Amino acid sequence: MKSFHVGLIGLGNVGYRVWHNLLTHRELLAKKSGKEIEIKKIAVRSVEKALKQGVPPGILTTDWKEIVNDPDLDAIVELIGGIDVPYEIITEALKKGKEVVTANKALLAFHGQQIASLASSYKRRILFEASVAGGIPLLQAIQDGLVANRFLMISGIVNATCNYILTEMTNGRMSYADALKKAKELGYAEADETLDVSGEDSAHKAAILCALSYRFWPKVEEIYTSGIQSVDPFDIQYAGELGYVFKLLAIIKKHQDSKEVEIRVHPTLLRKDHILSSVSGSFNAVIIKGDIVGDQLFYGRGAGGDPTASAVLSDLVELARYPHMEYNPRLFFADEQTEYKVMPISEIISRYYLRLNVVDKPGVLAAIAEILGKKNIGISSVVQPEVSSFSQGVPLIIMVHDAKEKYFKEACFEISRLPFLKGEPIVYRVEDFHVQ
Amino acid sequence: MKSFHVGLIGLGNVGYRVWHNLLTHRELLAKKSGKEIEIKKIAVRSVEKALKQGVPPGILTTDWKEIVNDPDLDAIVELIGGIDVPYEIITEALKKGKEVVTANKALLAFHGQQIASLASSYKRRILFEASVAGGIPLLQAIQDGLVANRFLMISGIVNATCNYILTEMTNGRMSYADALKKAKELGYAEADETLDVSGEDSAHKAAILCALSYRFWPKVEEIYTSGIQSVDPFDIQYAGELGYVFKLLAIIKKHQDSKEVEIRVHPTLLRKDHILSSVSGSFNAVIIKGDIVGDQLFYGRGAGGDPTASAVLSDLVELARYPHMEYNPRLFFADEQTEYKVMPISEIISRYYLRLNVVDKPGVLAAIAEILGKKNIGISSVVQPEVSSFSQGVPLIIMVHDAKEKYFKEACFEISRLPFLKGEPIVYRVEDFHVQ
Repeated sequence: MKSFHVGLIGLGNVGYRVWHNLLTHRELLAKKSGKEIEIKKIAVRSVEKALKQGVPPGILTTDWKEIVNDPDLDAIVELIGGIDVPYEIITEALKKGKEVVTANKALLAFHGQQIASLASSYKRRILFEASVAGGIPLLQAIQDGLVANRFLMISGIVNATCNYILTEMTNGRMSYADALKKAKELGYAEADETLDVSGEDSAHKAAILCALSYRFWPKVEEIYTSGIQSVDPFDIQYAGELGYVFKLLAIIKKHQDSKEVEIRVHPTLLRKDHILSSVSGSFNAVIIKGDIVGDQLFYGRGAGGDPTASAVLSDLVELARYPHMEYNPRLFFADEQTEYKVMPISEIISRYYLRLNVVDKPGVLAAIAEILGKKNIGISSVVQPEVSSFSQGVPLIIMVHDAKEKYFKEACFEISRLPFLKGEPIVYRVEDFHVQ
Repeated sequence: MKSFHVGLIGLGNVGYRVWHNLLTHRELLAKKSGKEIEIKKIAVRSVEKALKQGVPPGILTTDWKEIVNDPDLDAIVELIGGIDVPYEIITEALKKGKEVVTANKALLAFHGQQIASLASSYKRRILFEASVAGGIPLLQAIQDGLVANRFLMISGIVNATCNYILTEMTNGRMSYADALKKAKELGYAEADETLDVSGEDSAHKAAILCALSYRFWPKVEEIYTSGIQSVDPFDIQYAGELGYVFKLLAIIKKHQDSKEVEIRVHPTLLRKDHILSSVSGSFNAVIIKGDIVGDQLFYGRGAGGDPTASAVLSDLVELARYPHMEYNPRLFFADEQTEYKVMPISEIISRYYLRLNVVDKPGVLAAIAEILGKKNIGISSVVQPEVSSFSQGVPLIIMVHDAKEKYFKEACFEISRLPFLKGEPIVYRVEDFHVQ
C-alpha cells in the first residue's frame, strides 16, 4: 500500500487529537483512503510538552520551515491559529507543492481569496472542513452533496461559545457575566473570549460559507457583526414570554435575481418551536436552503478537539484518496469570482423586536405607533410587562412586521427623541425563516 | 472543456427532475465539475409521454440496451425501480466499463454485495446517494465527511410516507386509514403503499447504511422489520399523555467490542423533547454517532422528485470530477467484508411500552408485576387511562426499564395467559438515545 506523508504544524488541543485519532484509527483510515496516512513530522512550540503527551522525539521540531521544506511530505496540516504566521506557512507550503489542510477560519476570512488563487496556480488543494461548524461536514455538503443547487440561504449557529452562554442565560436565568464565567470554567470559552462573543468568529465562518456558496469572498469589514456581550437578561425574559429565544446567528441569503448577498451576524430572536431554537449548549446547527433540494439542517458539535480532528482527518483522507488534479473542484472559482456583492445592512428586510423604556402615561403608545405608521411599519404585537418599580420607567415591547432596516432605524431615531423616552431603544432582529 | 456523457434509464418523477435540473443548472455544474455533463440518451417506457414533457426526440429510446451498449456514454443513471431489470442493467453497464448512478434501494439491499464486487473488479464506480434519505447527503457524510470515525449508531426516520402518516395520526387525531388516504391524495404515498408502510423500504435503507458504516451487507430477511399499519390511535394518544410520540425508526447500532450489529425497523416511542420527535410530515432525519465526532443530525426532505434529483446530480458531478480510479474509496470493502453479523432481535436491550386490556378488578396489577419481577424487569410507570365504557375491559399501560427482548417477550407471553386479560398485549419499543 502506498503511503501519504503528513507534516503537522501545531500540537494544541486539536492537533493532539488529530495525532491521537490518526494512530488509533490507522488501519481503518488506510482501508478507507487506500493509503497509509502517517504523520512524519510535527512542529511544536514546546518539545518538552509534546514528549509528555507521548509523541516520539524523532518527529518533533520547533521550526515549521523544516516541515514546509521537507520533500518527503505530501501534505501539511496547519493548526496554530492566528493570521500572519499561518499565512506564511500555507503560501510557502503551496509553493513547495504540498497539499494543505487548515482549520483556520480567521486566516481564510482575511486571505481566502489569495490562498485559493495560489493553490489554483500551483495546482494544489487547500481543504478546510474543520474551519466551520467543527465536526459537521458542512463544507463538503455545500461543495459535494448539494453541489447541484443554487443556494438561497445558509444560516445557523456556528459559534459554540456564544450558544452555550445564551443557553445558560436563558435556561439558567444567568447574567452574561456569570454565563461567561461558567463557560470558561468548563472550557467552552477561551481565556480571551473576545473573538467569540463579539461575533467576529461567526463572521469569519460566514465569509467562508459565502465564498463556497456564492463564489466570492466578502471583505470581513463588510459583514455586519454584532455580538452577545450586551444582551440583557430582561430581553431574554421578555422575548421568552412572547414565544421567542435568543440565538447568535450567522445569516447568508441571496434572493433570486439579485446580485446582492445578505451576510450578517447578530443576536436574533427565533420562535421557540423553530428547529434552531432547540439547539442548545455547545452544539452548532446550520440550515441550508437549495433551489433544488429545499431545506436541510446539519447539527452536531461545533467545537472541541475530537469533533474538529474528525473534520481534519476527513480532509486528509480526501487528499490521500485522490491524486493531484489539474482541475480543483473545490475551489473552481478561485480565479473567477461571481459579480455578487454584499448587501448593505440598511437594505435588508427583517422583523424587529423593539424595547423602549418609557414614562408610563397616556398617549405614549399612540405617539410611537404614529412614527412607525408614517414609515409604513406595521406593529404585530405590543406588550407592557408588569414591573415592580416604576421609578426607572416601564418597559414597552413592540414587535414589528417586515420592514426595511433603514426605515426602521429612522423610526427608532425619531422615537428616541420623544420626551417620555428614557434611555436608548433596544433593537433585535427577528427571523422567521421556515424549514420546509 | 471536456464533456461527460450520461445515459438516463427511466423518466418518471425523479428521472424527469434530473433531466430538467441538469439543463437549468448546466453552466453551474460545468464549473463545479470541470466537465460539461450532458444527458445524451434516455430510455423511457413511453416516447410519446417524454415528447410531451419536452425531451427532444433524437435522444429517446425504449430499449435500455441501446444505452448500456453505447460506447459514447461515460455513465448511466438507473431510475426505473424494481429489482430484476435494474440488476441486469447495472451489471451489464459495469461490464461495459460504465460508471453507474442509482437511487434503487431495494436493488442494493438485495444485491448490493454482488454489484459492489462487480464494480470493484471492473474498476468502475457505483454511486447511490439518492437511495437513502432523498436529498440529504447522508451517504457522503458516512463515507467522506465522517470517514475517520467508527460508527456507534445510525438511526432515524428514513421513510417520508410513514412519517407523514404518523404525523397526521398524531396531530390530526386520524385513523391509519384516513391518514393513508390523505397521504395518497397529496402524493406522499404510492398507489401501492405496501413497501413503505410495512417498513420494508426503511429496512432496505437500513441495509445500505449498515453496509457503508459496518462494511458488511446484512441479509434483508435478517433485519427485524415491523410497519405502521397496525398502530392504533389509542396507543398514539396514551403515549402522548406519557410524553412520547410514535416514529418509524431504522436503528443500526454496534456496541464497542461486539461483533454483532443491531439492525431493525419498527414503530418506536421517543420522548417528545427528543430532536427526532420534531421531525414531522415528509421530512427525514438521521442521527449518526461517531466515536470521534460524537452525535450529528442530518435533516431534510426524504423524498420527492427534486430532492432525489439533487442527490443523483451530486453523484454525477463526483463521477465527472474524478477520472476512473484504481482504488474505489467508496466501496473499498466490496471484496473484504468485516466479520460482523446481525444481532438477533431477541438479544437486543430496550425499554418497552406495554398496553394490556384487562378486566378491572383487584389484584390485576400485582399479578402482572410479579411476572415482570421474576424476569428482573423493572416497571418505570403505570397508567390506567379513564375510559367511557368498561364492557371491553380497561386499558393498562406499563412502561418498563431496559430489558433484554427475549425475557420481556417471555413475560408478555405469561401475562397474556392471565385469566383477566382480554386480547393480546400490545408492545412497542422505546428509544431514549441522547444526542450529546
